[in-house]
Amino acid sequence: MTYPNWLSQRAYLTGNQLALSFGEDEWTFGEVNKIALDYAGKLAHFGITEHSRVALLAKSNAEAVFVMYGCLHIGCEMVMLNERLAGAELAYQIEDAKVDQVFVDGELYEKVAASQPVSFEQLRQAPSVDFALKAEWAKDRTVSIMYTSGTTGNPKGVRQTAENHFSSAVSSALNLGVSPDDVWLCMVPLFHISGFSILMRSLVYGMGVRLYEKFDATVCADELCKGQVTHSSMVAVTLDQVLREIEQRELSVSARFKQILAGGGPVPVSYLQRAEAHGIQVLQTYGMTETSSQTTTLQPADAKTKIGSAGKPLFLYQVKIDGAKTGEAGEILIKGPQVTPGYIGKFKDRAVQEDGWLSTGDIGYLDDDGFLYVVDRRSDLLVSGGENVYPAEIEKVLMAHPSVREAGVCAMVDSTWGEVPAAFVVLDEPEVLDELAEFCRGQLAGYKVPKLFRMVDALPRNASNKLLRRELKTWL
Amino acid sequence: MTYPNWLSQRAYLTGNQLALSFGEDEWTFGEVNKIALDYAGKLAHFGITEHSRVALLAKSNAEAVFVMYGCLHIGCEMVMLNERLAGAELAYQIEDAKVDQVFVDGELYEKVAASQPVSFEQLRQAPSVDFALKAEWAKDRTVSIMYTSGTTGNPKGVRQTAENHFSSAVSSALNLGVSPDDVWLCMVPLFHISGFSILMRSLVYGMGVRLYEKFDATVCADELCKGQVTHSSMVAVTLDQVLREIEQRELSVSARFKQILAGGGPVPVSYLQRAEAHGIQVLQTYGMTETSSQTTTLQPADAKTKIGSAGKPLFLYQVKIDGAKTGEAGEILIKGPQVTPGYIGKFKDRAVQEDGWLSTGDIGYLDDDGFLYVVDRRSDLLVSGGENVYPAEIEKVLMAHPSVREAGVCAMVDSTWGEVPAAFVVLDEPEVLDELAEFCRGQLAGYKVPKLFRMVDALPRNASNKLLRRELKTWL
Repeated sequence: MTYPNWLSQRAYLTGNQLALSFGEDEWTFGEVNKIALDYAGKLAHFGITEHSRVALLAKSNAEAVFVMYGCLHIGCEMVMLNERLAGAELAYQIEDAKVDQVFVDGELYEKVAASQPVSFEQLRQAPSVDFALKAEWAKDRTVSIMYTSGTTGNPKGVRQTAENHFSSAVSSALNLGVSPDDVWLCMVPLFHISGFSILMRSLVYGMGVRLYEKFDATVCADELCKGQVTHSSMVAVTLDQVLREIEQRELSVSARFKQILAGGGPVPVSYLQRAEAHGIQVLQTYGMTETSSQTTTLQPADAKTKIGSAGKPLFLYQVKIDGAKTGEAGEILIKGPQVTPGYIGKFKDRAVQEDGWLSTGDIGYLDDDGFLYVVDRRSDLLVSGGENVYPAEIEKVLMAHPSVREAGVCAMVDSTWGEVPAAFVVLDEPEVLDELAEFCRGQLAGYKVPKLFRMVDALPRNASNKLLRRELKTWL
Repeated sequence: MTYPNWLSQRAYLTGNQLALSFGEDEWTFGEVNKIALDYAGKLAHFGITEHSRVALLAKSNAEAVFVMYGCLHIGCEMVMLNERLAGAELAYQIEDAKVDQVFVDGELYEKVAASQPVSFEQLRQAPSVDFALKAEWAKDRTVSIMYTSGTTGNPKGVRQTAENHFSSAVSSALNLGVSPDDVWLCMVPLFHISGFSILMRSLVYGMGVRLYEKFDATVCADELCKGQVTHSSMVAVTLDQVLREIEQRELSVSARFKQILAGGGPVPVSYLQRAEAHGIQVLQTYGMTETSSQTTTLQPADAKTKIGSAGKPLFLYQVKIDGAKTGEAGEILIKGPQVTPGYIGKFKDRAVQEDGWLSTGDIGYLDDDGFLYVVDRRSDLLVSGGENVYPAEIEKVLMAHPSVREAGVCAMVDSTWGEVPAAFVVLDEPEVLDELAEFCRGQLAGYKVPKLFRMVDALPRNASNKLLRRELKTWL
């Protein structure tokens, strides 16, 4: 089973429609396709074929999109590297994925210099040679790979297939509605599923993307008022900042703007009310890298009676609570064509599905009407400004310090970022406490470095000596 | 690969949304689902299981929908019988499909009495017993079977799978757009793909259907003005009649009404202009039973520069012209997940695809911009008021008359129906000419009975003695 090449098809069917806008520049699908064909030829010059796996390290800008679309034309797999990661973290992913070539946005070159990357500048200047255009895409073709950590602290590379992305885009359309002149404002990173799924929707719907390198509340508020964009993706903290801009500057949101999709945990009701006062619909959603973005979404009409709910599954998906009755909490299980077929690298043999069901590790329940409530994101995960942070990964780094005997990390509430990591350590030499932040900084992305370090005599553990991170939280 | 049961999923996700409206009655998805569960239990009372194949002969009314939805819950295959067919034609299909049970709308009982059918009244009064709800649907499950004739004059039962219907609905949504409050006015028969695909879209989108037993220009025009419906399906002749109503009564079409999907051949530009004057978008489409409705669709923006074109493929589909270059005419080939996997019964071993490509038998070309033009529906097909009519089938009936030596049927232009069949016959006894209409009436649906019979000395044939129906047309 195949799809016609999405980008070729878009250039053919809606070649004159807006595909991408970045800064002052705009490209139609016809134009983006031409550029992508050129980039595909340049990638081929560096030996990339449909059998290759490449890694991309880039800011979320137009050139990154061209390189990604070039990869789509060639048919290679893309490992999406997070530009905020430290060198050691990137090296781990590049090594685990056994990529054939790393391509890197010039200013990030130093982070991956050891992997002998090709810079975007070298790519741009390379000749575009003949290549085999991937005219049809197998449904099970791996399009993107994104690393996510978890209980072990070892990041795992999650495969996202063409069918994963397609069914995600289609299910979202059936839920939110879709119109040929929609334009999605993208201020979330393209190397995350939140951002990459916007590109995938763009190709499947023929929808324009207004892209920014990073989130900026002032610019975002202006975009909502200008009348060019219809949708955007945010998390609660960024939504709050945008609403403040609108409120303080007494801005008027364009009638053309339709919806904000809000991930990364529940949005406070007060934010929803403020959004509504400005005519903004906010749809809260629950999803993860392993489900290629949204799995459940809460309709605005239900947001006030189902406070804190993550909504109901999208049309093609199923959600159930492991072994629990209605109203009882348990592990959230997910089934559908958006669920990854598995990992690559070190974890490639680990099963991610049982009878088609993905165990999320998150705890939740379904109410009488079938609305999902996520009671507790798994205790091994905290979300800081939209970025997933895995305590185990930070603990592993801390434990590598010669004076740290034990380390436990948990989420601490933060007014700007929602959550930030906090570390509890048992030390052989108390005086190293002040060095730990600097020690982490060399090996972890900045947002993963604990904002609080506290020395303790012992960590809370259960009978089998497992660290109880939930109890740590109560110590804060 | 499976789908969650579409009807259960709709009741769960959008149970309070309008699903169906017929006459003065309305049902939400929750209500329709309950009724369908009850009907499923009644069908089970008559021994119907997921392994059964049933035939349905019904008017296009609410009860027919309930029975169909009951069948969806059970998971059986439905042979959709055309209520306009003559008894002999129905008997052929029932026999060829080897159905386990025929269910029939009471007033049509006599047409299929010999097959020992269960009437809808009997079904209604039967107890609803326990049955195994089909909670997940295999993608390759045959949902519906529709008979279509062709070159041989023997109707063939076309399988339409869950994936065929799903990809058709989704591809249409990506082309037309979709909104959670859309309502489709259905005045085309449910036993045709044009009508049944509206029900399938209803379930996939969560869209309401305003159903009528048959087309009525006055009522249709009123519906377009009332503001309750957003879409409708028509053919050129019915569009013309609706426009006349609107023009003569100086009606004002509701701003809520969005689009008319027009099948069954090109719509004259003058109709498009008249529609536009009333704010109606008309999208011309090309499709067939074997492709579960639309394959290409012409956007209104292109309708005036690409006069006579059937448009471009929907997103998931591919169209090419067999062995021809751009601009050259040849047989139209179609590929995509909407293409039937094959036939049932007598023709079950006949391949319908070669490397995934369906040979349509229709002749067309693609212009420089990739727009499809259907030059000639295959000469063995004419379309009369939206119904497909196969000359070979009529010729076969005529040849069975003892005094008819040869018979040739072709399309004759008709101001009301677009086309009607005309018959040329070589007779042993000239005086039987006047009996032929009556003779046909006993064995063919009314719309298939030739409106003109003309006696000739010989029929036009080529060197291998094949009837030249295109030449017959020039004799008219």
